[in-house]
Amino acid sequence: MSRETTTDLYEVTMALSYLREGMAQPATFDLFVRDLPPERGFLVVAGVEHVVDYLTDYRLGSEQIQGFASVLHRPPEDLEPLLGITFDGDVRAVPEGRVVLGGEPVLEVTAPLPVAQLVESYVLNQISHQTALASKAARCVLAAEGHPVVDFSLRRTHGIEAAAHAARAGAITGFSATSNVAAAVELGLPAVGTMAHSYIEAFGPEEAAFRAFADAHPGPVTFLVDTYQTEQGVRTAAQLLRSLDDATGSGSAIRLDSGNLEEEARRARSILDAHGLPEVRIVVSGGLDEYAIDDLVRAGAPVDVYAVGTRVGVSADAPYLDTAYKLVAYGDRPVMKLSTGKVTAPGPKQVFRRNGCEDVVALAEEAAPAGSRPLLHPVVRKGTRIGPAPGLQHIRERCAADVAALPEEARRVTGPTPLHSSTSPRLRALTDRVRRHIRDAYLPDASL
Amino acid sequence: MSRETTTDLYEVTMALSYLREGMAQPATFDLFVRDLPPERGFLVVAGVEHVVDYLTDYRLGSEQIQGFASVLHRPPEDLEPLLGITFDGDVRAVPEGRVVLGGEPVLEVTAPLPVAQLVESYVLNQISHQTALASKAARCVLAAEGHPVVDFSLRRTHGIEAAAHAARAGAITGFSATSNVAAAVELGLPAVGTMAHSYIEAFGPEEAAFRAFADAHPGPVTFLVDTYQTEQGVRTAAQLLRSLDDATGSGSAIRLDSGNLEEEARRARSILDAHGLPEVRIVVSGGLDEYAIDDLVRAGAPVDVYAVGTRVGVSADAPYLDTAYKLVAYGDRPVMKLSTGKVTAPGPKQVFRRNGCEDVVALAEEAAPAGSRPLLHPVVRKGTRIGPAPGLQHIRERCAADVAALPEEARRVTGPTPLHSSTSPRLRALTDRVRRHIRDAYLPDASL
Repeated sequence: MSRETTTDLYEVTMALSYLREGMAQPATFDLFVRDLPPERGFLVVAGVEHVVDYLTDYRLGSEQIQGFASVLHRPPEDLEPLLGITFDGDVRAVPEGRVVLGGEPVLEVTAPLPVAQLVESYVLNQISHQTALASKAARCVLAAEGHPVVDFSLRRTHGIEAAAHAARAGAITGFSATSNVAAAVELGLPAVGTMAHSYIEAFGPEEAAFRAFADAHPGPVTFLVDTYQTEQGVRTAAQLLRSLDDATGSGSAIRLDSGNLEEEARRARSILDAHGLPEVRIVVSGGLDEYAIDDLVRAGAPVDVYAVGTRVGVSADAPYLDTAYKLVAYGDRPVMKLSTGKVTAPGPKQVFRRNGCEDVVALAEEAAPAGSRPLLHPVVRKGTRIGPAPGLQHIRERCAADVAALPEEARRVTGPTPLHSSTSPRLRALTDRVRRHIRDAYLPDASL
Repeated sequence: MSRETTTDLYEVTMALSYLREGMAQPATFDLFVRDLPPERGFLVVAGVEHVVDYLTDYRLGSEQIQGFASVLHRPPEDLEPLLGITFDGDVRAVPEGRVVLGGEPVLEVTAPLPVAQLVESYVLNQISHQTALASKAARCVLAAEGHPVVDFSLRRTHGIEAAAHAARAGAITGFSATSNVAAAVELGLPAVGTMAHSYIEAFGPEEAAFRAFADAHPGPVTFLVDTYQTEQGVRTAAQLLRSLDDATGSGSAIRLDSGNLEEEARRARSILDAHGLPEVRIVVSGGLDEYAIDDLVRAGAPVDVYAVGTRVGVSADAPYLDTAYKLVAYGDRPVMKLSTGKVTAPGPKQVFRRNGCEDVVALAEEAAPAGSRPLLHPVVRKGTRIGPAPGLQHIRERCAADVAALPEEARRVTGPTPLHSSTSPRLRALTDRVRRHIRDAYLPDASL
């Protein structure tokens, strides 16, 4: 199935009706996160590059038309108005890696109404889950306070596409490596990982397993020490590391994957040091997330590398974001919805930022307030990407700078205070005007 | 990137070492869920068919070898022992749609050790997240007590692969349709969906929007009524439905997506009935999951169709399962690990079930206890699929029967009691024997 066929049916039924009515003027849709989940003080944007790739490749061909016709139980001729549609609109977006707050447009699509509508499902999907994963990953990096964090999430993410996105989210936010080979190749990341418990068990004695591994992989090695009894596993690893030549001993590590990781790490450190192996590092894994990392760091556990997996790869405490892709203008007319608890602000917008994260959501046409810079930048014009895709290193540096500029209360691992943007007077005035217009024109009986 | 390259690096480093050591005897790995998450009384198996497709297609070619070599910073020649590897082993699995409990093997792979190891990451990924999604979806169907449940999750799942799996998980567990066109086409499901708030806003007045939609889509229609003010939206929809010919009015519906859904549904039902439209159905959506459905059903809200989205498509309250893929035998030797809190039982296994869900985990070689039937069935032999893939309808019927046979305490939406399987005396004896052997042979210093 093509990406274009992966759409909610209603995008298709709406597009057909728009075309039938001749409603193909430019429409602007805002994509934003309504409210941050609990335990999030900020968000890190991700998914924009996948969206740009999708939009600039978007084309409805006969395969898509056949698919639409079959589920609508209509002859393909009825779907022909859609045949050959490409994305010929404009996109402005907050660059990946940038910090954003609730209510701020992350991406704004302006295209002929049927086209801007048709691309909704994919665009929402990618920005929503990739931003959720990056926002979780950024908190792990904060918690680790400079220690390397690596991604071990592949085995339990929601599919292998999600695993690739989890590895990339980690890379954007400052992880140092991933266990996912495909992601490492594609993103040019270091790949990490050595052995599972099954490896030890297949050999039986730990010493035989460790020795065979070192034979097969000259250079630094990481030994998994908790298959049978951790303290003895550490001793066995230490003795073998001593016997390997210097080139192997330095850069090598042991990995702890169970038990009380703080106690096990302290015990392991003592044993390694007693064997004259102060350079051998301790990697911990097993159910880690930013909360567990924070506990270990605050306890002063002698951990060198944090390997995070499932809880981070699915953003377990906030597995989705409350995103919306909302029509804010059609033709010359700003629009909004008034649904209970889901009111949207009308009109194309810009977000202006100054002093770290003092943000103002304003109308796109407003001038930047003194000392502020706009967050939304053009990334697609008339269906074509503007400039080359930013490199991962660049995105990563942007993320690090933005996170560093956040106030402490938003960066806190436990109980962060989400930052809030303000709304410009002109946007507030337009919102009031559109609300009054809707009331007067469409709701004569209602009191709003 | 190929699916074979989407692997944890350690599968590759271990496989290389196994081959170097000549350790290619048959190994058996058990895939199981250690403990159920809170709020789950049972699990529904899903993902097996994707795993069978993966394994029967598995092949390491030069693309994979290049990828592995590049991340290992080794010349491709070093990786040549892996070139041409296919999955030539056997798989037994619990069929999709079947209910399973914590600790029961869902899938058992027996293959030459390097091969059985190499496929771990993908196999775990697919069974873990698809079983998580199906187990969540099954609870929605239970909560709805016979009312149709439909899948609207595409926009916020963890990627579009995850969306396809969410749609399929719904189909397995009894959902009646999906909004995801690609999934509907691929699975032969009904596709559903009509209009978004943006559609109404693009027109301005609701009446114009509803009329245009009915013009474009003859036959039953669903009108979204909460864009501006729900009560008035329902009236506008009702008046228009009255004016459409009978063929359109019957089978039509209104959709409520915000506010207090119980109150809104009651109000809408009154308005529709007062307009002589008792056949027009009420669809609700917006943040629904099994808990919200249960509340509405218990309150007697006049809801006809429940459309579930994000919370179900990401299994928000339990977004992952505590799965493991553990070596249980190598050659003739049963093995296990003793890591704190993660002890595994050795040996190839079978699960015997009788009287609904009275399960015994036993050794594969044991005879079935009287009146019980085995859950694990051969699905792959020597790398080839055994028999055709089961049809979706068949899987769905199996799921419905299994869920219906569960005791009430496991089926409960709130506070379910997870069922537990027992262990056969022979499996317990083997576990003790292997544990003693490990202690005697590998842990002379330890007291276990």
